[in-house]
Amino acid sequence: MRFKDQVKNEFELLQDEICTGLEKLDGKANFHQDSWDREGGGGGRTRIIQDGDLLEKGGVNFSAVEGVLPESITNALGVDNNEFFASGVSIVLHPHSPHVPIIHMNVRYFELNDGTYWFGGGIDLTPHFIVDDLAKDFHESLKTTCDAHDLAFYDEFKVWADNYFFNQHRNETRGVGGIFYDRLNEEKSSLTKESLLEFSLSLGRTFCPAYEKQTVYRNSTVTPEEKRWQLMRRGRYVEFNLVYDRGTKFGLETAGRIESILMSLPNDASWIYNYAPTSKAEKETLEKLKKGINWLS
Amino acid sequence: MRFKDQVKNEFELLQDEICTGLEKLDGKANFHQDSWDREGGGGGRTRIIQDGDLLEKGGVNFSAVEGVLPESITNALGVDNNEFFASGVSIVLHPHSPHVPIIHMNVRYFELNDGTYWFGGGIDLTPHFIVDDLAKDFHESLKTTCDAHDLAFYDEFKVWADNYFFNQHRNETRGVGGIFYDRLNEEKSSLTKESLLEFSLSLGRTFCPAYEKQTVYRNSTVTPEEKRWQLMRRGRYVEFNLVYDRGTKFGLETAGRIESILMSLPNDASWIYNYAPTSKAEKETLEKLKKGINWLS
Repeated sequence: MRFKDQVKNEFELLQDEICTGLEKLDGKANFHQDSWDREGGGGGRTRIIQDGDLLEKGGVNFSAVEGVLPESITNALGVDNNEFFASGVSIVLHPHSPHVPIIHMNVRYFELNDGTYWFGGGIDLTPHFIVDDLAKDFHESLKTTCDAHDLAFYDEFKVWADNYFFNQHRNETRGVGGIFYDRLNEEKSSLTKESLLEFSLSLGRTFCPAYEKQTVYRNSTVTPEEKRWQLMRRGRYVEFNLVYDRGTKFGLETAGRIESILMSLPNDASWIYNYAPTSKAEKETLEKLKKGINWLS
Repeated sequence: MRFKDQVKNEFELLQDEICTGLEKLDGKANFHQDSWDREGGGGGRTRIIQDGDLLEKGGVNFSAVEGVLPESITNALGVDNNEFFASGVSIVLHPHSPHVPIIHMNVRYFELNDGTYWFGGGIDLTPHFIVDDLAKDFHESLKTTCDAHDLAFYDEFKVWADNYFFNQHRNETRGVGGIFYDRLNEEKSSLTKESLLEFSLSLGRTFCPAYEKQTVYRNSTVTPEEKRWQLMRRGRYVEFNLVYDRGTKFGLETAGRIESILMSLPNDASWIYNYAPTSKAEKETLEKLKKGINWLS
């Protein structure tokens, strides 16, 4: 089997596994699947869960596309060859409760037909209200997974996430970060191509158990003020995804399936002019939306 | 008086005039002003109206800034000189009712200290539900104003607006368009510098009477379905402003006053996965979000 077919198969299985896990965690709603084909080659399976017990809106996308890259993209990537294959699994979950964080994960593989390849990915957590112990749990899960593959990964990818998941115009991180990596291959790490695929899959399998720990306050009471704050934090999430997120920009520019790309946006979001935090919890959360915090300590 | 001081004074007066007009039209709320200074030179007056009878959230910004342009901007503009002055008035209004359109206007002047200058601006209407007669009224107002200055302006600037106020990734215009122009000076038009300022001010004075005509259905009953549709159309407005709008991008990249730049975003917006229109009015509106419609006929 060609390596790219193996990646495709493994990522499809990963999507299945995560959807099964999330349906169990939600306890009420099921995923609805839309399969789609890409004009230039390949396609995907977009799976959306809505109006669940835990999840208001969530998407788990799988795609495997191939074809010819437009010049704007080969220039941006700094590559010569333009025949590509790309596959990945992308997740964004928006829970009902402001006491449960938004979460995002993406693992992806990219190759050109001249043999160039790389893996990319990331997982980050966006609590509406930051709870230190839960942020610590999350980073511990990621570190454990990273350490099993390469002891250098966690520290390096944690800094990368702080820099990537950042609303520059607000001088604010999106949440408590996580890990982010791109263009990872055997030249840029201690791992072989096959081991990098294993790392991607391990990260994918960390997703459900790591998120389950974050849902401990799913049934806590919610005040109207907490709901209002959640909608504003979702507004910041929209800002990040539309202004900075590379995957979103790539999708919009290459005319991908819009509904799959923008499934990352919440059902509802708010912007309030010149809002100043009205509670200690809001204030403390804002103060922790900074780069460089060691959540493990 | 130097020309740039004249522009600044006239634009300040224009902001005053429009705010007075809008308070009268609203009938309940008043503008609140935040004055701000820019670190590199100049500043502005952001005026926000909220929770009015007609308007849910509206901003009328005036700014006059000067200083040194970063290289990224001089490169993007294709200019050598980097000492600049820029002044403008920017407006976005989000009404309560889905039966009243969102409206945007901007008039601006830019000069470099080597004598290079240009005017830019635009005004466009985003009805949640398109009403042909109201779109016609709006375009007639704009054509009347344009024709009084240069008979070529309306046709040229109408096409420019169709192309500019366009959500490429949705293949959808933002609304029924209007006019848009940029880098207008005596070389690119039949008008002198002074006459171009007059044109900008005429356009500014067209704003209130043109919008008043659009508010005829402000007290019509609103169904929950119409409200839901309004929130989704606002979502598209957010997409345009964060993904494409040049003024917003310029502001975010040059670290302008964020709350003034993002006052254009609505209080609330929604995204519903793969939404299909559920009424004739929704469907007909979508069908008219196309370039090249002659609203005057």
